[in-house]
Amino acid sequence: MKNLSEHSIQPLLQARWSPYAFDSGKTVDAEDLSSLFEAARWAMSAYNDQPWRYIVANRKTDSVLWEKILASLVEGNRSWAQYAPVLALGLVSPEFEKTGKPNATAMHDLGAASAFLTIEATARGLAVHQMSGILPDVIRTTFPAAGSLQPVTALAIGYAGANGELDEDIAMRDKRDRIRKPLSEILIHSSL
Amino acid sequence: MKNLSEHSIQPLLQARWSPYAFDSGKTVDAEDLSSLFEAARWAMSAYNDQPWRYIVANRKTDSVLWEKILASLVEGNRSWAQYAPVLALGLVSPEFEKTGKPNATAMHDLGAASAFLTIEATARGLAVHQMSGILPDVIRTTFPAAGSLQPVTALAIGYAGANGELDEDIAMRDKRDRIRKPLSEILIHSSL
Repeated sequence: MKNLSEHSIQPLLQARWSPYAFDSGKTVDAEDLSSLFEAARWAMSAYNDQPWRYIVANRKTDSVLWEKILASLVEGNRSWAQYAPVLALGLVSPEFEKTGKPNATAMHDLGAASAFLTIEATARGLAVHQMSGILPDVIRTTFPAAGSLQPVTALAIGYAGANGELDEDIAMRDKRDRIRKPLSEILIHSSL
Repeated sequence: MKNLSEHSIQPLLQARWSPYAFDSGKTVDAEDLSSLFEAARWAMSAYNDQPWRYIVANRKTDSVLWEKILASLVEGNRSWAQYAPVLALGLVSPEFEKTGKPNATAMHDLGAASAFLTIEATARGLAVHQMSGILPDVIRTTFPAAGSLQPVTALAIGYAGANGELDEDIAMRDKRDRIRKPLSEILIHSSL
């Protein structure tokens, strides 16, 4: 796997990637997992509203909750995420807590929190693969505590690794190079 | 400034904060600035669409572009962001490049990219203060290249520092503790 960087960046940011194959035999330590969500907690957010919410299950300690999260994914994601030892859902509170007004950047801020979580995971040798392919109606029915929250993402968390049980076509995805648009394409006006 | 963490996290994540006072006399090195946007480039995104786009100006090298970005902020943000040596805007491409279908998580993915950018900044001694208070209509008029992109955020980038010119009430904000909801509140179901 090659990373074609144009400028030097922190090794932790460079090392991060989203595997399809997880080592299903390697469980995730509870304290490591707590630190991942602790990292999310310290992200920045509009008016410090912290609109991010998570549902998280470690298969080792709560297989019932883990199965419920797995059932919240679209079938194409269940096919590989079923081997992840930890599954989570990312949701947002769509209104500011203080004012009740719509929070237009709630999803943006969830993205930042999950990025913090992912970097903490990378530092601990863990990998995170996020998905937008979820079943919001299933999530609202399965988790009444989700209430008026908006389900946005799912997160598969574990140790990347060879997984002989994984469909070969899916496993092959982990062999591909990481491709990115050139910096010149994402900077539409720049004085760099 | 206290950081009341419940679990240990990476020093870089813990150290990050959003200052109001920037040292306006300390300019940002061009290579440092390039690495910030390089870090954003390597974030994760739905279908690897990389919907994030930025407009960025280093006041030192392009004060005209920098002024245009400053004029894209709501007045309350201009009052303190005018001392930041670098200003940027964050926008998203609202449709997937490959299919033309709406990208429901484009803002989420911009949030992740800007989080990567912010962590790279922290590693280089820089600080980033993001804003949702922007003037989208002004941005679309000022920057025709923005086209159908959706303006979402602005980013003030520079070295945090005492700034005697800053309004005292605003400068006081940097003295406050960083407050976060307890982990138990953001984990609505958890097997941690």
